[in-house]
Amino acid sequence: MNWWLDACKTPSAEARLQAAERQLQLTKPTGSLSELENVAIQLASLQNTPRPNIDKPWITIFAGDHGVMEENISAYPQAVTRQMLQNFTGGGACISVIAKEYNAKLQVIDCGSVGDAYEYAGVERHCIIPGTANFAKQPAMTEAQCAEAMLLGAKSVEQAVASGASIYVAGEMGIGNTCSASAVACFLLNEPAEQLTGVGTGIREEQLNHKKNVINQALALHQQYVGQDTFKALCAVGGLEVAAMVGAYIRCAQLGLPMVVDGFITTASALVAVRLNPAVREWMLFGHQSAEYGHQRLLQELNANPLLKLNLRLGEGSGAGAALGIIKLACSLHNNMATFAEAAVTGEKV
Amino acid sequence: MNWWLDACKTPSAEARLQAAERQLQLTKPTGSLSELENVAIQLASLQNTPRPNIDKPWITIFAGDHGVMEENISAYPQAVTRQMLQNFTGGGACISVIAKEYNAKLQVIDCGSVGDAYEYAGVERHCIIPGTANFAKQPAMTEAQCAEAMLLGAKSVEQAVASGASIYVAGEMGIGNTCSASAVACFLLNEPAEQLTGVGTGIREEQLNHKKNVINQALALHQQYVGQDTFKALCAVGGLEVAAMVGAYIRCAQLGLPMVVDGFITTASALVAVRLNPAVREWMLFGHQSAEYGHQRLLQELNANPLLKLNLRLGEGSGAGAALGIIKLACSLHNNMATFAEAAVTGEKV
Repeated sequence: MNWWLDACKTPSAEARLQAAERQLQLTKPTGSLSELENVAIQLASLQNTPRPNIDKPWITIFAGDHGVMEENISAYPQAVTRQMLQNFTGGGACISVIAKEYNAKLQVIDCGSVGDAYEYAGVERHCIIPGTANFAKQPAMTEAQCAEAMLLGAKSVEQAVASGASIYVAGEMGIGNTCSASAVACFLLNEPAEQLTGVGTGIREEQLNHKKNVINQALALHQQYVGQDTFKALCAVGGLEVAAMVGAYIRCAQLGLPMVVDGFITTASALVAVRLNPAVREWMLFGHQSAEYGHQRLLQELNANPLLKLNLRLGEGSGAGAALGIIKLACSLHNNMATFAEAAVTGEKV
Repeated sequence: MNWWLDACKTPSAEARLQAAERQLQLTKPTGSLSELENVAIQLASLQNTPRPNIDKPWITIFAGDHGVMEENISAYPQAVTRQMLQNFTGGGACISVIAKEYNAKLQVIDCGSVGDAYEYAGVERHCIIPGTANFAKQPAMTEAQCAEAMLLGAKSVEQAVASGASIYVAGEMGIGNTCSASAVACFLLNEPAEQLTGVGTGIREEQLNHKKNVINQALALHQQYVGQDTFKALCAVGGLEVAAMVGAYIRCAQLGLPMVVDGFITTASALVAVRLNPAVREWMLFGHQSAEYGHQRLLQELNANPLLKLNLRLGEGSGAGAALGIIKLACSLHNNMATFAEAAVTGEKV
């Protein structure tokens, strides 16, 4: 019944070993490419080939609006969610430029934004609900709505796999969604808002304190319903786009598609996915450590060390997207550097 | 007489301002692209245009051998220096793959390697001396030799500028050159070897202690000659490729070509350049913080925060080369993202 509990694929130990052995033969001091070696070896294992590549990256932006916006917890108005949907497909958003730079497919899925029905060229509209309920007062989503959002994510991954994608990036858009992600993270880590709440798109200190209060009160409100249940935490305080990304991450691991996790909101989603189905973790690469307070704590919980630390705090999958360039380079080096034998270079130490 | 004391170009304050103003108009929360914004704005200022680009990167690898290799301070044999020269031009080295990835010109200059005359396709051979003297016993270079090496670097930059290069990367190859770079850094920072000496290509602890002793004894040997004189420190314990990079960096700043500094050895060279001519600092971007012990201390002295921290310790300009991808992305975002007005997105906070 709950597809997300189904088994994940097993990464290839043999391809990992072959890739690791190749790295030892390349013309460089042993281990000197460090993180670039690690990412190539991990990807070899996930793609089940000693010569990994990310020639066909796939990026999906999941959007959704948040009822908790009623509580005045964001720097920008809710209308920006929909405005940005058009900017994504129009080519003007950060992730649009990144997708073009790395030759990635960019899919834009509206899981439920506030407002009337619309048609925007290139935006896939699935209005599960026009924005979640205000979790300061009631659960953000019913269990059925949450499951539906997770399925949207899963379907996106199935499309990516069918198209031959070599790596998957989920990004998010939803004014107010750091508030939702913080609340989810608080439930999963059993910590108060103070440990996991940041300024999002840029609120000031007074509003930040208010945001923390809103989250702490919501944690108390939903505690009895949620208990230790990860899925119920997602329903109670999550967002449609957060749930969709949880579904996408789990489906990636089930279908054997490597994924790159982005910033704070996606990492909260990644933690939900791993709690629901722990083997998902193996299929994750981490692109970027963001400036959002609490991201480091989430990364630590996932034992993750992102490739980039550029202090970004934009969302949209931008940190993971930027990391595609580094992952691409890691693959090029792995595949195209000469071995000691090929180059007639002495590989033995003195 | 000493060309390296000549004035540097002044970066454009106007282009910096225009670029900074543009960043404020792009469809993203204010400042949310952080390091990517900073690098685009700095580059705008250095390239004197509100729309910077690095469409024509230029990479020069400077090679040289080191007399101090007699003291058994490296993990690899000296023959590797020349073997790698052929690997650079043959396309099999790390920096060769990076140059291809980012469409960069790759120049390879041998400033003085050990051995007989040779002709390798694509390698520019300038044998100032076939390896420096052993600085454990005498100055590595005469002042004339050092100045000649600096001029080689300057000439390389003049070629880059003449060809229309948009950014310059210097890399180095020279078995034993972390030992030389550490010794130079010790003189400049007035610190003992313990603070600035690492494992280079991968020596073990016992050999590392020996390397530190060799450096400390050399510092004592040359102290009277060097005093507080940066140029004399370079002559006493530097390398031909280190001196060439000093000349290249200074010439970049004099001719107005932005440069990306690489790892430990290049950063030591960068510090020499800045001590000789402080205005050079403005023209530097920093690509990567390497794993070599002491690099962080040098970066701190230069008030530098590199774009990447991938734990590389390869040299060859590889960290700066990898950073070209991030700098390229920063320029694409700066130039191609839509403004709030263009995309009809609300840019005002609530």
